[in-house]
Amino acid sequence: MTSTPRVLSSQPLREGWPPISEEEVELPSGARKRWIRMHFGTSAAVLPVTPQKQIVLTREYRHGLGRIVHSLPGGTARNGESAEACARRELMEETGYSFEDDQTELLAHMYANPTGARTRIWWYLARNVRKTGVPKVDPAEVIETRLVTPRELLALIHDGSFAVQGQVAAAYMALERLGYLSLSL
Amino acid sequence: MTSTPRVLSSQPLREGWPPISEEEVELPSGARKRWIRMHFGTSAAVLPVTPQKQIVLTREYRHGLGRIVHSLPGGTARNGESAEACARRELMEETGYSFEDDQTELLAHMYANPTGARTRIWWYLARNVRKTGVPKVDPAEVIETRLVTPRELLALIHDGSFAVQGQVAAAYMALERLGYLSLSL
Repeated sequence: MTSTPRVLSSQPLREGWPPISEEEVELPSGARKRWIRMHFGTSAAVLPVTPQKQIVLTREYRHGLGRIVHSLPGGTARNGESAEACARRELMEETGYSFEDDQTELLAHMYANPTGARTRIWWYLARNVRKTGVPKVDPAEVIETRLVTPRELLALIHDGSFAVQGQVAAAYMALERLGYLSLSL
Repeated sequence: MTSTPRVLSSQPLREGWPPISEEEVELPSGARKRWIRMHFGTSAAVLPVTPQKQIVLTREYRHGLGRIVHSLPGGTARNGESAEACARRELMEETGYSFEDDQTELLAHMYANPTGARTRIWWYLARNVRKTGVPKVDPAEVIETRLVTPRELLALIHDGSFAVQGQVAAAYMALERLGYLSLSL
């Protein structure tokens, strides 16, 4: 089934951000289904590695989760900002670290959610990051920077401290790209 | 910051499922912030491995994404259903495969979203799965079962065919748990 489903109706559920709408859709099979969709903008995040092969993480309070989690630096792009520029700005704001233009590469462009939103997150890997600035802490989040080794990052994943799915996926991809994880069959 | 933030107001945005509310919260720092929260129930999914060490995937159309993706079998629990029972039922409905009680283990319990929902997904690993039934296809999804090797699963992740973040995270965790991926420092 590759033909496009027909959107029969789309109704906004509220004013404000993020926009949420309810759509009725007719699928190529003839079946009809209602979907809730949230419309987020571009989001981007980065796995930053220092010259000493340590990974720069943040620890922050997330009310959506109701707890403190370890995360990769990232956030939502401002109007007109590219995904890479967003990742770079969020890294500086959250940790004070930066990287040279030739030290970054795209890791993946993944979907946040299989059903409720078409949002894709841009994940970058940045090598040889250095502390060149001062973090600007958002008072609604408590941010602390933490440097961990690849082995410690895997341990944080295993013990559930690094617990947001997209972040876990990007961390594994980065460890693989950096040559720390490999397939043994 | 470990003290609990105070929810000042919580307003439902709509009737129906999933419930969505807008909360105003006062953080321990004194800062106030508004959050949109979606309230999903229990969700569970499973990475099923056959005795021949092949992984059972589905290919399905997801309107939320507007495309066909490869996925691990899973879905939302019915009233009173445990996460493991949900994973087992969804595996049977989507692929016709099943597993013995002593062949399953919890892989992880991860957050779907860092901000908008407190939803956690239960991910299982099931070994020695066998085809013992007939899939019940949901007419709103086109489901095809596909068996892949660990190497092929990694290739689907790398080329973006297996593109939903939580699924990618669970796949890496399962490959690690099964001994196919390991840290080399």
